[in-house]
Amino acid sequence: IVTQHTAVNGISHRGRVLTLDSMNPNVKRVEYAVRGPIVQRAVQIEKELKEGVKKPFTEVIKANIGDAHAMGQKPITFFRQVLALCSYPALLEDSKFPEDAKKRAQRILEACGGHSIGAYSTSQGIECIRQDVARYIEKRDGGIPSNPDNIYLSTGASDAIVTILKLLVCGEGRDRTGVMISIPQYPLYSAALADLGAVQINYYLDEDNCWSLNITELRRALNAAREHCNPRVLCIINPGNPTGQVQSRQCIEDVIRFAKEEHLFLMADEVYQDNVYAEGCQFHSFKKVLFEMGPEYSNTVEMASFHSTSKCYMGECGFRGGYMEVINLDPEVKAQLIKLVSVRLCPPVPGQALLDLVVNPPQPDEPSYATFMKERTAVLSTLAEKARLTEQIFNTVPGITCNPVQGAMYTFPGITLPQKAIDKAKELGLVPDMFYCMRLLEEDGICLVPGSGFGQREGTYHFRMTILPPTDKLKVVLQKIREFHLRFTQEFS
Amino acid sequence: IVTQHTAVNGISHRGRVLTLDSMNPNVKRVEYAVRGPIVQRAVQIEKELKEGVKKPFTEVIKANIGDAHAMGQKPITFFRQVLALCSYPALLEDSKFPEDAKKRAQRILEACGGHSIGAYSTSQGIECIRQDVARYIEKRDGGIPSNPDNIYLSTGASDAIVTILKLLVCGEGRDRTGVMISIPQYPLYSAALADLGAVQINYYLDEDNCWSLNITELRRALNAAREHCNPRVLCIINPGNPTGQVQSRQCIEDVIRFAKEEHLFLMADEVYQDNVYAEGCQFHSFKKVLFEMGPEYSNTVEMASFHSTSKCYMGECGFRGGYMEVINLDPEVKAQLIKLVSVRLCPPVPGQALLDLVVNPPQPDEPSYATFMKERTAVLSTLAEKARLTEQIFNTVPGITCNPVQGAMYTFPGITLPQKAIDKAKELGLVPDMFYCMRLLEEDGICLVPGSGFGQREGTYHFRMTILPPTDKLKVVLQKIREFHLRFTQEFS
Ligand SMILES: Cc1ncc(COP(=O)(O)O)c(C=O)c1O
Ligand SMILES: Cc1ncc(COP(=O)(O)O)c(C=O)c1O
Repeated sequence: IVTQHTAVNGISHRGRVLTLDSMNPNVKRVEYAVRGPIVQRAVQIEKELKEGVKKPFTEVIKANIGDAHAMGQKPITFFRQVLALCSYPALLEDSKFPEDAKKRAQRILEACGGHSIGAYSTSQGIECIRQDVARYIEKRDGGIPSNPDNIYLSTGASDAIVTILKLLVCGEGRDRTGVMISIPQYPLYSAALADLGAVQINYYLDEDNCWSLNITELRRALNAAREHCNPRVLCIINPGNPTGQVQSRQCIEDVIRFAKEEHLFLMADEVYQDNVYAEGCQFHSFKKVLFEMGPEYSNTVEMASFHSTSKCYMGECGFRGGYMEVINLDPEVKAQLIKLVSVRLCPPVPGQALLDLVVNPPQPDEPSYATFMKERTAVLSTLAEKARLTEQIFNTVPGITCNPVQGAMYTFPGITLPQKAIDKAKELGLVPDMFYCMRLLEEDGICLVPGSGFGQREGTYHFRMTILPPTDKLKVVLQKIREFHLRFTQEFS
Repeated sequence: IVTQHTAVNGISHRGRVLTLDSMNPNVKRVEYAVRGPIVQRAVQIEKELKEGVKKPFTEVIKANIGDAHAMGQKPITFFRQVLALCSYPALLEDSKFPEDAKKRAQRILEACGGHSIGAYSTSQGIECIRQDVARYIEKRDGGIPSNPDNIYLSTGASDAIVTILKLLVCGEGRDRTGVMISIPQYPLYSAALADLGAVQINYYLDEDNCWSLNITELRRALNAAREHCNPRVLCIINPGNPTGQVQSRQCIEDVIRFAKEEHLFLMADEVYQDNVYAEGCQFHSFKKVLFEMGPEYSNTVEMASFHSTSKCYMGECGFRGGYMEVINLDPEVKAQLIKLVSVRLCPPVPGQALLDLVVNPPQPDEPSYATFMKERTAVLSTLAEKARLTEQIFNTVPGITCNPVQGAMYTFPGITLPQKAIDKAKELGLVPDMFYCMRLLEEDGICLVPGSGFGQREGTYHFRMTILPPTDKLKVVLQKIREFHLRFTQEFS
């Protein structure tokens, strides 16, 4: 009401309709560090460089976001051939395209309204693609059945995650839905919870044990939360972002048992399911473990698991493809979910087409198989090499401690900051690791995200770095961070 | 709490975590008729036909949704060539593609991270595309300046509309944000308002005057709403969906004056801006009229206007491209908006690329110009012909009254239903026009949306039909509806 009658920038005697005071307060509470102030400053510096401003470096290296193509990774040829064929079907007559690519494109086009990827699809996603997704899951999980009716295609995994959270949030005051998320977390979760006005319940990953998940800590967090909200959801990211850990089968079993005992809806974010590098580590899907635990679990535990075209070996972020599989969902709620996704009509059809190729890639007897496998293997083995390299080099730096990068695309090393640096940051009104990352950006043109953007134990400091830059560049980055860290530590000692 | 301890389908003694009783109550309130029960039944009937079930018809004609390609409209060649080039840049070497298509693809690729449409873009959308959008708006509006910083690319117009509504909703009880929407409306609006828990304020379009908007009615609705909420937003759809009217310049001026006087944020949904058919009608953008009204208006009225790749002559719904231009937005709120759109990372990049082509099509001196113009003109003139045809034929049917289809892609004729049909519907627990449309679907395989899905004055009945089926098929549809209406009226007289 105040804002309606005070002058804002002298624009009108009543001021604006929409101001910081009169906007949605939940949106104000949203934070999203991966694209926060440090990234905005990085973009600014890039502009300054272009305009000829002199800096101690010639380019900004953005190791702040898991964006493989932006870091120079090449798309998988087969995927892009099929997408070109779907976009411009006249190419189906072109002999330069392999037969399997044409077959795949034709199949997708036949499933589209008017045989065009320019038609809306059904809101849940094109049926034959959902069938392919289900078959992919069955194969991945050693034959455990998957029902296409339980598959929902989405606009990236982000969309599906927000949709499921939205369904789950209700109640007021002490009855408000609480959602357990790991700390450090991927900030989509905290942002969505703020937006929905849900209660965020933090459980801390165990940095001293390779960022593993500990059931005692889960229980502590849950019991504390029960004092002030109604915890109903448990979110897991495996392999982990920003922490790069891969969960053991035992751990997943324990989590599922905990979810059942404590009557929690499970959300398993498995967008990095192909990104596993460390010896002895293996990806186990929550779905598979759930079913292996027997009908007592597989018939009762409610779960959504998420996948995306943005990560793994393809890294096709721009297409915004993804899906979720939802298990043991109440049929009445399912009808509500379908209604909810209808409002936005459908996920992008090119992203759906791409997802179809991801879950149904060239087979050994098809002409594109050899190239596909070569490209896929090259990406994954380079990532594995960069994961090792990163851990190795960081651990040679006094004051940086880096867990093995078992999977995903990130490292989240702990950094020891001198008290004087902490004081200086406070003086500047910055959290200490933001101060650290800002200095690194200004001095070396390297863009990282401060640990505070993901959450961390009080009094500890971290940064998140992707391992995506090409190996040569990554080596330079690691070396520069090393030198910066030593310089910084010295300056504030 | 109840739901945690009762048996649901005997699945567990505690029942499910997520049930109809324990889900987000706002989501339950969402309705979305365009993909509602009648469409679900249509899909079922299609399956039955495939399985060989005998029906009085051989195919279901879906005139329920504005999906041009699904109705057989062909994509614009130039657009799809560029999209193929962007998807698979090896084709840039192919002499079969025209030079202007290659140039356009190269420019888009250069603006992408790693020169790949598989990279995430900035959350607001690729900068050079936003520049092209701004230039398009300037040209459309006779030189009135447009700032690329005020342009936000989106996942279809749906996404942008929901985002702006989300920013605007706040307050509790009598202070809760009220949003004025036309009745009949496009149900995205009512769905988003239910989801956000905002107050929907209905103003009725004037059916007797070609569905025009009447300021007296706006004022009535506003004053009534002020008793129980805080009206802050006025939504306009022009050209109109589902009603097909095109607003006069005078009407737009009146609306803008009203919004300023009453301190309302304007949302102008202009996704049908190229779909104007009727003699004497012309599209006037709210932006242009606002600026022509002078700085008293152009410096103060806060407005968002929306456009999409889904409609007009291109009809590329599946790509989920769109943008909004937001004017006079408080800079602090702008920062919040940018943060909010960051959470979902970015709109689909193929959709952004497509949008770039829509706002920057082939120019007269370029090789693709002639074909482009031919294709564009063919689509728009066929639509104009179908608009006339629809009005003409419907108005020959006693009991159907159809306003001229001045623009957009729909007609929303009023239908007179015999009292016995209304009674029969009530007996079956259906709203009368749903009963009517269901009967039409079962008897003739034609899928329309009942007027009740869009809202209508108490005691009146309508249906919405798209004019998108190919002319021959449209004639058959109109004829069948005519016969059905006569039969139905007779049956219940
Ligand atoms: C753990 C995790 N989940 C979900 C996402 C969302 O990815 P997208 O929406 O591109 O599929 C990301 C992206 O970085 C992620 O790291
Ligand atoms: C008036 C209006 N606005 C917005 C939309 C949303 O379209 P899209 O999200 O495909 O851009 C539609 C779709 O039919 C519409 O009719």
